Amino acid sequence: MDTPHRPSASACPPVATSTSSAPAAASGKPRTHARCFALLTDFGLDDPYVGQLKGVLHRLAPTVPVIDISHGVPPHRVETAAFFLAASHPHFPAGAIFICVVDPGVGTPRGLVSMESGGQVMLAPDNGLLHLAAEARPDAVLRRLDPARLPDSQSATFHGRDTLAPLAARLAGGESLAAFGDPVLPTDLARPAWAVPRRESDGVHAAVLHVDRFGNVVLNLSLREWDWLAACRLHLPDGTLIDIARAATYADIPAGRTGLVAGSQGYLELAADKASAAERHWLHPGAEVLLEDCR
Amino acid sequence: MDTPHRPSASACPPVATSTSSAPAAASGKPRTHARCFALLTDFGLDDPYVGQLKGVLHRLAPTVPVIDISHGVPPHRVETAAFFLAASHPHFPAGAIFICVVDPGVGTPRGLVSMESGGQVMLAPDNGLLHLAAEARPDAVLRRLDPARLPDSQSATFHGRDTLAPLAARLAGGESLAAFGDPVLPTDLARPAWAVPRRESDGVHAAVLHVDRFGNVVLNLSLREWDWLAACRLHLPDGTLIDIARAATYADIPAGRTGLVAGSQGYLELAADKASAAERHWLHPGAEVLLEDCR
Amino acid sequence: MDTPHRPSASACPPVATSTSSAPAAASGKPRTHARCFALLTDFGLDDPYVGQLKGVLHRLAPTVPVIDISHGVPPHRVETAAFFLAASHPHFPAGAIFICVVDPGVGTPRGLVSMESGGQVMLAPDNGLLHLAAEARPDAVLRRLDPARLPDSQSATFHGRDTLAPLAARLAGGESLAAFGDPVLPTDLARPAWAVPRRESDGVHAAVLHVDRFGNVVLNLSLREWDWLAACRLHLPDGTLIDIARAATYADIPAGRTGLVAGSQGYLELAADKASAAERHWLHPGAEVLLEDCR
Repeated sequence: MDTPHRPSASACPPVATSTSSAPAAASGKPRTHARCFALLTDFGLDDPYVGQLKGVLHRLAPTVPVIDISHGVPPHRVETAAFFLAASHPHFPAGAIFICVVDPGVGTPRGLVSMESGGQVMLAPDNGLLHLAAEARPDAVLRRLDPARLPDSQSATFHGRDTLAPLAARLAGGESLAAFGDPVLPTDLARPAWAVPRRESDGVHAAVLHVDRFGNVVLNLSLREWDWLAACRLHLPDGTLIDIARAATYADIPAGRTGLVAGSQGYLELAADKASAAERHWLHPGAEVLLEDCR
Repeated sequence: MDTPHRPSASACPPVATSTSSAPAAASGKPRTHARCFALLTDFGLDDPYVGQLKGVLHRLAPTVPVIDISHGVPPHRVETAAFFLAASHPHFPAGAIFICVVDPGVGTPRGLVSMESGGQVMLAPDNGLLHLAAEARPDAVLRRLDPARLPDSQSATFHGRDTLAPLAARLAGGESLAAFGDPVLPTDLARPAWAVPRRESDGVHAAVLHVDRFGNVVLNLSLREWDWLAACRLHLPDGTLIDIARAATYADIPAGRTGLVAGSQGYLELAADKASAAERHWLHPGAEVLLEDCR
Repeated sequence: MDTPHRPSASACPPVATSTSSAPAAASGKPRTHARCFALLTDFGLDDPYVGQLKGVLHRLAPTVPVIDISHGVPPHRVETAAFFLAASHPHFPAGAIFICVVDPGVGTPRGLVSMESGGQVMLAPDNGLLHLAAEARPDAVLRRLDPARLPDSQSATFHGRDTLAPLAARLAGGESLAAFGDPVLPTDLARPAWAVPRRESDGVHAAVLHVDRFGNVVLNLSLREWDWLAACRLHLPDGTLIDIARAATYADIPAGRTGLVAGSQGYLELAADKASAAERHWLHPGAEVLLEDCR
């Protein structure tokens, strides 16, 4: 596993988590972890929204460090945020509290949900943002948070700053998520179309989760399930058809070709060497591709 | 009030501030606060300027945390910075030292000014950047800083790094602003045209302070003074005329219409639901609109 | 010198460095410094790559603060990164560990190199990224790192997260660079064309290292060597010829003219007052200019 306990010598206050673990259960006391906040939003960094969220966190939990995953999720692109969270959380310490705010329906009464796993806590709207992370952690505890038990909202329009940040600070201070919501099943949460690739008679229908700065195209094909895929015929949204094969690194893709790489992010990527696969094939988050004759 | 004292258990060194407060005066000793630096500039994040400013702060005050409000203020747009500061500082802890650098005249002998209020300290050029924050805090102590008493400048072109950062570090280390400048009246500071909406016979002339990532248009109409405004006829810079009404949230604005929202930032905003009010009406920071028949 | 020892009262753990210093040698024990990590990449801030790198650093070295120099280096522009590092490191504390990842050949077996000077440590690919910093520090110890001795790489495609971050954490924890690689001479490292201006019979051929947010054009003419330059005739890539002269600040450049400024970054810059010298003359990183009749 990628998230060992942090060493005990730490600047952060250790805090009890409500998830049980075998060693902790054996010793009869809850496992404790040093805390940090990890932020994931579509706020961008030009507006003062992220700064205000951090101001509140620092005011309420001044000793807990804050780390940005990204604030550059394209506005309202939940699938990209879900991918960022699933790809990033294994690199963070146990004890991390993830505050995720990407929501086309902000300001409306959409519910908040939480996930606890391996000492980490994730807070997000119930719009599928937790799906890819939860899928990889069958042991995770999922909860639907009860608006009546959440910190007061001063503002109908900025839940991240006024509800999620104070909630996260209270969790970092030792309160349990059990005080804010009851467990639900994974099937109780929102599950958008991009959450799972569809196997049909004509092949596998996959969705684009993200296009990165270098033009690499991340598909919703996790290495956990799809690492066996060596080659296929790919139907692109513009009607063209190309043969693609796996390459060990970006540099191993022949010039002018598009390859399939097991990138560093845990999902299969369409990529080109020193070129943008996304621009070459007009791909963007939300697009669908069909993989035929997978082998 | 939104900025209570931080709890005493903190990683930051408590520091005396020169502003007096009733409880502190009663107990006969100065109030102390845990310190943090909050940064607000138009430097962007691509160049190394923000990193160098943080390097200096960390070299001179290694235990004081640094929080970014924004470095994405449009170049030289003082009204946007003034709005960011006014909207953000209430969410930061007492003890925060705000370093604000947005200045069309950098490198010229424009003066620096400071504001102290509620345990917070703000440092900025005398170009109106402090105006909106000062307006909301009639108890604030304003000072004009004396160049002869400021830390040496190694460079004629980077005051933020070479003068403001060392000054902020000395304040965090316990020095008083009184050592660097004498008090002035609010009317002694620069007061640009966008600072106050103008009421004239034809209506209220308001200015655009900011257009956010989602296309919401922030006007210089603070909720403190303008929350009563329910509807009006709006004259746009391109000559068109629209009727607008208040909406409780962005989602409550009828499709295709532009509404007036008491946003999360303390000012009235022109907004549209899942659309950019700024693009629809060609609005940008610095533009003026006329509100007729306000009711 | 610009990087004094940090005061001993610090949140960061003091750590031995392998560079010797006169006072330390005299007292017979290694010099210790408080640590921080400084990051310089071309990853951008939209993707989750920087967040993952920070997650790993925080997991392995939770008490060491992290400061961003920039993640906005244009993709694969090594000269810009080299300039950012040379211009920034003097403002950081002794004890800073710089993690630099800008590499057109990532994923290929290019070597990693290190530099130790004044208590600071720099880690980078061997592509010239350290050149400008090393040039200014003839006392620096340079090493070629041995892949066989570096932390395991989980991924062929993300060396920054999987190799450099764990290495930096081990250095912050007290391990010596001598355990990871042997010293080499400056002439053993890659030295690209932009590293040194060429003096030829027709004048001085200089390269553009960077264009900043305000359109200022940084040339590879360090003030250390070129501060005497008062005026010259400049041949631009588009064939035009202009006379340029030094100005003390950007505001001192006559309107409509392009001037030469000893900017705050330690290198000569082509600049205009409230205008973009880069746009005016179609200059960009990698472009070359010829300075004739320098005086």
